[in-house]
Amino acid sequence: MSGPVEKEDVVSTSSSYEPAARGAADLAAVAVLLQIGAELGVDRFLDSGDGFTAGQAADAAGLPAGGVEEYLRALVAADLAVADAAGRYRAAADYADRRYEAGYVSWAMSANYPFVEHARSFLTDPAGAAGAHPRDGRRVAVSSRWVGERAFYPGVFEYVSESGARRITDLGAGAGGLLIRLLLQDPARSGVALDISSAACDAAREAAARAGVADRLEVTERPIESLVEDPGPVDGAEAVQACFVMHDVVADEPLFAKLLGTCREALAPGGFLAVVDAVSYAPDPAERRFSALFTYLHANFMDIALPAEEQWLEKFRAAGFSSVRCLPQPMPGSRLFVAAK
Amino acid sequence: MSGPVEKEDVVSTSSSYEPAARGAADLAAVAVLLQIGAELGVDRFLDSGDGFTAGQAADAAGLPAGGVEEYLRALVAADLAVADAAGRYRAAADYADRRYEAGYVSWAMSANYPFVEHARSFLTDPAGAAGAHPRDGRRVAVSSRWVGERAFYPGVFEYVSESGARRITDLGAGAGGLLIRLLLQDPARSGVALDISSAACDAAREAAARAGVADRLEVTERPIESLVEDPGPVDGAEAVQACFVMHDVVADEPLFAKLLGTCREALAPGGFLAVVDAVSYAPDPAERRFSALFTYLHANFMDIALPAEEQWLEKFRAAGFSSVRCLPQPMPGSRLFVAAK
Repeated sequence: MSGPVEKEDVVSTSSSYEPAARGAADLAAVAVLLQIGAELGVDRFLDSGDGFTAGQAADAAGLPAGGVEEYLRALVAADLAVADAAGRYRAAADYADRRYEAGYVSWAMSANYPFVEHARSFLTDPAGAAGAHPRDGRRVAVSSRWVGERAFYPGVFEYVSESGARRITDLGAGAGGLLIRLLLQDPARSGVALDISSAACDAAREAAARAGVADRLEVTERPIESLVEDPGPVDGAEAVQACFVMHDVVADEPLFAKLLGTCREALAPGGFLAVVDAVSYAPDPAERRFSALFTYLHANFMDIALPAEEQWLEKFRAAGFSSVRCLPQPMPGSRLFVAAK
Repeated sequence: MSGPVEKEDVVSTSSSYEPAARGAADLAAVAVLLQIGAELGVDRFLDSGDGFTAGQAADAAGLPAGGVEEYLRALVAADLAVADAAGRYRAAADYADRRYEAGYVSWAMSANYPFVEHARSFLTDPAGAAGAHPRDGRRVAVSSRWVGERAFYPGVFEYVSESGARRITDLGAGAGGLLIRLLLQDPARSGVALDISSAACDAAREAAARAGVADRLEVTERPIESLVEDPGPVDGAEAVQACFVMHDVVADEPLFAKLLGTCREALAPGGFLAVVDAVSYAPDPAERRFSALFTYLHANFMDIALPAEEQWLEKFRAAGFSSVRCLPQPMPGSRLFVAAK
């Protein structure tokens, strides 16, 4: 037998990759390692940026220290954490950048995994599948936060902050993070946090208390469509902000028109509505892939038909707002629509 | 209220992204869209490179045509497929490149999702969790193929092909793809495909029949460790190849030493053993992230402790092979070890 099986000694060379493939392998690994951290409850230690021991994280998470230590060693091997000589770990300097990128994978694959795993059921019996295979709210919230902290919350925060608005209502406020940051920035500000989820409302009340702004934050557990009957939570607001919540009601055209009209009328003079949401199938090369996934999953797995950019704009205009602006945000397909009273 | 809420008309500018973040969003979207294709059974139409209608794919997959059409439209929007005027779809020109990159995400997040989803259980009760939350064999096989077609199968194929070996045994042959390609390349070649899975053995027999090489391929349903008692399947082989199967038995040092010794003795004069497998925590910056995930998951979720590169080499040397080479492969942390009789 001939061939290249030479009788030389050990040869070990370093690997070479196509750059895109290396990026893919790196991102896949980072996303799964960080998602596991979120599952274990070790993410808040990493997020803090402070040093901690495996024992501290294990105690807080109610897990065996050995297993948490193994996990943290893997993070160090992956350049996501550093360990000092005393056995204390902390997140690597670029941890927040890596977490942002990982957020896209965690949202796309992990938060939506029930859709992926049961894709055939969703195509054959969408209503039945939606009932049987719901997403996990915590996984959706965590991955949305990882993306949103860089890719859509800053746009709303900066806009509302710079507007000088003092009375702010957040529709679909979740745990109240964005609104509380705005209250912390200016002691003259007060806010109303509206959410349909009682767990989210509880979390918002607790977060407001921790931040020392409980006296300036009213939390109300309601669906946004209830504003049509009782606009109390938006009455007199100088800014009404809504992140990825309007798409839940946008398909019901008469209702959405009424909701926008209610908000416009209730706003204080000079007030505005700041809506962050996604457009259907954004065509730009920089956006088209992620926007395609986002649009497709919402339409076929969540029964949410997103409007195109121009359709969103037309809805705000038709509700009588005096001007409407569309500000693209870093998350592909996302837009900040600002509609002035 | 003062601020930047100008009374100008609609402003819409194109988005700007940090390049890494755009790459992350793109890769996340591509991976989930292709994984959904694999779940739906539409992947083989895309893989073929040929044109097809939504109806054809839907009929073959046993799914409603409307739902498959929606999926294919999303692929077109994401630049992963093209549609012609007659409503026929085909994969985009760079589909195979994108599928390779997506494979890392699909393996890391989708194939391993039971580990991610139940990470806490694996840390508290590894044995119980392993029994309760097994991976889906099809998802593991599909994502491994997407990666392997570019990142480790070509290395083995080329090495064995160029060696001129005519009698080839594949340990852990799965559906026999690699071995059948080698048989198709040279009509003088014959092979033995060994696998522990009866489903894999059935698939290998069917694939061999389809490829017209059934008369030159023997399929045997056995665990690799059985070779120690009965080396028949490797007896007289000029090449014995084994892709990511040796790590299943490497932790049992006496058994693995016996297995290597058995292979060495059974090989024809001038024959060799070609083992593709992963090393523990590869330190190179180009490999460390994915290698960390791969190593960590195997050790903590699959009870497989990978040897370091030098430990693998030492095991081959100790079994009496006359030379051992280590050839890094494109998948981070993977190596082709070639041990000559």
